[in-house]
Amino acid sequence: MGEQRTRSAQTWGFAGEGLREDEVEGIRAVLAQRFPDAALELRRAAPIDEAALRPVRVRPPDALAGICATDPDSRVLHALGRSYRDLVRLFAGDFSSAPDVVATPRTEAEAAAVLEWCSDAGIACVPFGGGTSVVGGVEGPAAERPVVTLQLRAMDRVLEVDRVSRAARIQAGASGPVLEEQLRAQDLTMRFFPQSFELATLGGWIATRAGGHYATKLTHIDDLVESVRALTPAAGVWESRRLPGSGAGPSPDRMLLGSEGTLGVITEAWVRLQDRPRWRASASVRFPDFLRGAEAVRALAQSGLDPANCRLLDPHEAEIFGGGDGQSALLVLGLESAHQPVEQDAHTALDICLGLGGQCPEGLRHRTDGVDEAEDPASTWRQNFLRAPYLRDALVAVGMITETFETAVTWDRLPELHSAVMGAVQKALAEICGGGVVTCRITHAYPDGAAPYFTVIAPSRHGSQIAMWDEIKAAASEALLASGGTITHHHAVGRDHRPWYDRQRPEPFAVALRAAKSALDPSGVLNPGVLV
Amino acid sequence: MGEQRTRSAQTWGFAGEGLREDEVEGIRAVLAQRFPDAALELRRAAPIDEAALRPVRVRPPDALAGICATDPDSRVLHALGRSYRDLVRLFAGDFSSAPDVVATPRTEAEAAAVLEWCSDAGIACVPFGGGTSVVGGVEGPAAERPVVTLQLRAMDRVLEVDRVSRAARIQAGASGPVLEEQLRAQDLTMRFFPQSFELATLGGWIATRAGGHYATKLTHIDDLVESVRALTPAAGVWESRRLPGSGAGPSPDRMLLGSEGTLGVITEAWVRLQDRPRWRASASVRFPDFLRGAEAVRALAQSGLDPANCRLLDPHEAEIFGGGDGQSALLVLGLESAHQPVEQDAHTALDICLGLGGQCPEGLRHRTDGVDEAEDPASTWRQNFLRAPYLRDALVAVGMITETFETAVTWDRLPELHSAVMGAVQKALAEICGGGVVTCRITHAYPDGAAPYFTVIAPSRHGSQIAMWDEIKAAASEALLASGGTITHHHAVGRDHRPWYDRQRPEPFAVALRAAKSALDPSGVLNPGVLV
Repeated sequence: MGEQRTRSAQTWGFAGEGLREDEVEGIRAVLAQRFPDAALELRRAAPIDEAALRPVRVRPPDALAGICATDPDSRVLHALGRSYRDLVRLFAGDFSSAPDVVATPRTEAEAAAVLEWCSDAGIACVPFGGGTSVVGGVEGPAAERPVVTLQLRAMDRVLEVDRVSRAARIQAGASGPVLEEQLRAQDLTMRFFPQSFELATLGGWIATRAGGHYATKLTHIDDLVESVRALTPAAGVWESRRLPGSGAGPSPDRMLLGSEGTLGVITEAWVRLQDRPRWRASASVRFPDFLRGAEAVRALAQSGLDPANCRLLDPHEAEIFGGGDGQSALLVLGLESAHQPVEQDAHTALDICLGLGGQCPEGLRHRTDGVDEAEDPASTWRQNFLRAPYLRDALVAVGMITETFETAVTWDRLPELHSAVMGAVQKALAEICGGGVVTCRITHAYPDGAAPYFTVIAPSRHGSQIAMWDEIKAAASEALLASGGTITHHHAVGRDHRPWYDRQRPEPFAVALRAAKSALDPSGVLNPGVLV
Repeated sequence: MGEQRTRSAQTWGFAGEGLREDEVEGIRAVLAQRFPDAALELRRAAPIDEAALRPVRVRPPDALAGICATDPDSRVLHALGRSYRDLVRLFAGDFSSAPDVVATPRTEAEAAAVLEWCSDAGIACVPFGGGTSVVGGVEGPAAERPVVTLQLRAMDRVLEVDRVSRAARIQAGASGPVLEEQLRAQDLTMRFFPQSFELATLGGWIATRAGGHYATKLTHIDDLVESVRALTPAAGVWESRRLPGSGAGPSPDRMLLGSEGTLGVITEAWVRLQDRPRWRASASVRFPDFLRGAEAVRALAQSGLDPANCRLLDPHEAEIFGGGDGQSALLVLGLESAHQPVEQDAHTALDICLGLGGQCPEGLRHRTDGVDEAEDPASTWRQNFLRAPYLRDALVAVGMITETFETAVTWDRLPELHSAVMGAVQKALAEICGGGVVTCRITHAYPDGAAPYFTVIAPSRHGSQIAMWDEIKAAASEALLASGGTITHHHAVGRDHRPWYDRQRPEPFAVALRAAKSALDPSGVLNPGVLV
């Protein structure tokens, strides 16, 4: 099976599904009003030219030739992830990170053979899922040594469903729609809806500890993983037992979760599934400012009500994405259940908001029609959510800097972190770009803290975009770390976050991780430059 | 501060708090009816005699002399944990596992100095919390080399409370009552109530991935840990950031959780706290048999209602512990909330049970008086729960084999596992003891599986108790592993579970763990024989 659509080699998503020219024009007009000094020239992406690529330096063994590609389009498609830095480079025709070979195994045995080839020959091997990394997670060290990208998308089957335990064994290369389609027959769902849903894969989610649909409780893929199977270069197959819970030593799964392709190649996993929600209630609640709204998010996160959606947009974001007036913060609240009505809990949740200064003239909206806006292709919310990255391509084309970053922090430090990061980024934007916009939302909430998510849009000088963004990002990252946050809540470490990750993690843990890596991958071929 | 009561060196708990002689006589009478062929001679524990202990082989550096004890009572108290095997040995006067020295640091600096001494001198160092291990977790290799027990009970302070984030920084040596007493001033609670609550420590819970109060959702200490601080022999202090959630590489905390003292000495942790519950509802529901009851537990665990209590006793257990007639399984159901009434959820939960064949003539019981039976010293349930291990001492004294073991398994395999384990143990009891009783309960439940907990009572031959129990335990463990279970759900691995743990864990993970251990503890002094 697999998708019929073709991936775009230099932009987000699928070829031909980006914004239409008139839409791009419309965005340019809006930006011109907001940033009157910005050039906003619409440029075209550099063509993929074989001459722009490094010659292929390695030749696969004959037995693997049938699953290995070396054509320019395949190599460019796997050269980089999809961060702002990546898009600028791809747009400008910088294909220096293109791998030498893209191997697409159809079976675990073929994947093992590719890994063995790389390990024996000392070739860097970059496991690749959807390629949606925004942190340099799939950018191999092509300047230093030959690179083979291990593309797992051909392994995308749901192999087994356990209806009783609500779990399924799924191959690592399955993307969101591909695995959901297979689960639908059993009336089950993963309900894991990151923005990369259409492209990214189960293996990639596990390797990067991705964040999904639920704003509380089951926030990360970690919580949905029952067991993992992975290939290691020197120690064979790593396969944990399917267990609902265990206290037998440190969790093997938790060591692969977040390993970002450095310890092994994840080939399949048993994941926990959900019944499809039947009852839903939602509300949009306005607050006088972001921190007042955050107080309500805290109260909700500590209430035990576990709202599925509990996203807080600051006044600026609310204006851009939620149709607000730019004066109020907007809390998008949603409860759902497959098993019992949520009406009473929803009223309790709304009362908590109103008691903390929220306003909700429209009141609660209830749905029991079984239609899920997260899954319904006609839903406006879904369209906007999944289309947002395409919008970013358009902003790159007109020369704007546009990127997001996120963190998590305990509640006691949230106000200070918010103020420090907003201040640091605004200062950097003023100095580096002569202006720009930074906004904040809370995407996930915990009893003990929240995950703030920041968006930056600013004008840039053509040709200097990456250097400019790197300076802004460094200012933001320093502020995050100084305020007690993590360098990433659900976008992983990759190569881009290394300087801050290395400072954040406990040094003895780094020692342990390096030792584990050396034992499992003594030639250091697995995703070099990431984590260790 | 610290406790006023003195620990008993050869039995569970506190000296003088065991069963009275008339209670032991009563138990003997009941056992005599059930096991007419058993000898049931009441024996006295062997006295602690200095001559029965190995001479002390190491002398602490002068700077540490003030915190080091070598008296016989201290050495015997730290010789073993409190498994059945341990109690039999202590009772018989086998003190061969006694450490040479018991060091009781009052500060982290003193703990580091003890660790440095051990590391430099190649002395085995066994971190020790409450000493309630039932798997040989604190039994040092005294027969092979000198052993220093690192007793952390003097470090028992709550150092900081963050009321906003509901979290506290607590020293690793604090036992349940000691930390709860300090948290009470802030009207917060950990609500972590394992059977070892009165004795075991926060550091021990983290090192062993202990299981606590909640039957669903927050089942293990893992879920309550925000960050951990530990000392390593070769890589200094391991301290993670306080984070409510993070996606920055594999979780450092999850590597220490379950490390059982092999990677570092946990000195303190930030843990997540709860508000005190105000609303409670409970019910006792009878089912025709254990597996019918288990179907209800599954429905509850998959319902999203997250009952705090959801314990299912098989008919035999229900008769012994719940006053049942021996014909029905008994589900003890409880919901609680600090924030909103639980009445509606409790009705929904009870309806689920009744719809699956449960009977509950008494209906729901509601409490809103703020009295928590888990905390109320007058509560019968609490008394029975915390007194159960004292009862075990009495059974040892009259020569009965008595022990528990637990596992976890996915729902699809539960019936087969239950039948295989009950069958294997009954067969072993018949062959080895000429009879005996094995019962089962479910203590914790997950959307994808359950944690069954087995209790064994059988007559034994004096002097052969350990060999007999080892044979029964081996039969049970083989059945657990063959049926897809884990060798432990919340009792850790220690030395006793090694043979099955080694088969259960993925071999590449063992390779990684050994490498991490070697890097952090190159002289191999930390708790040798455990995990790696």
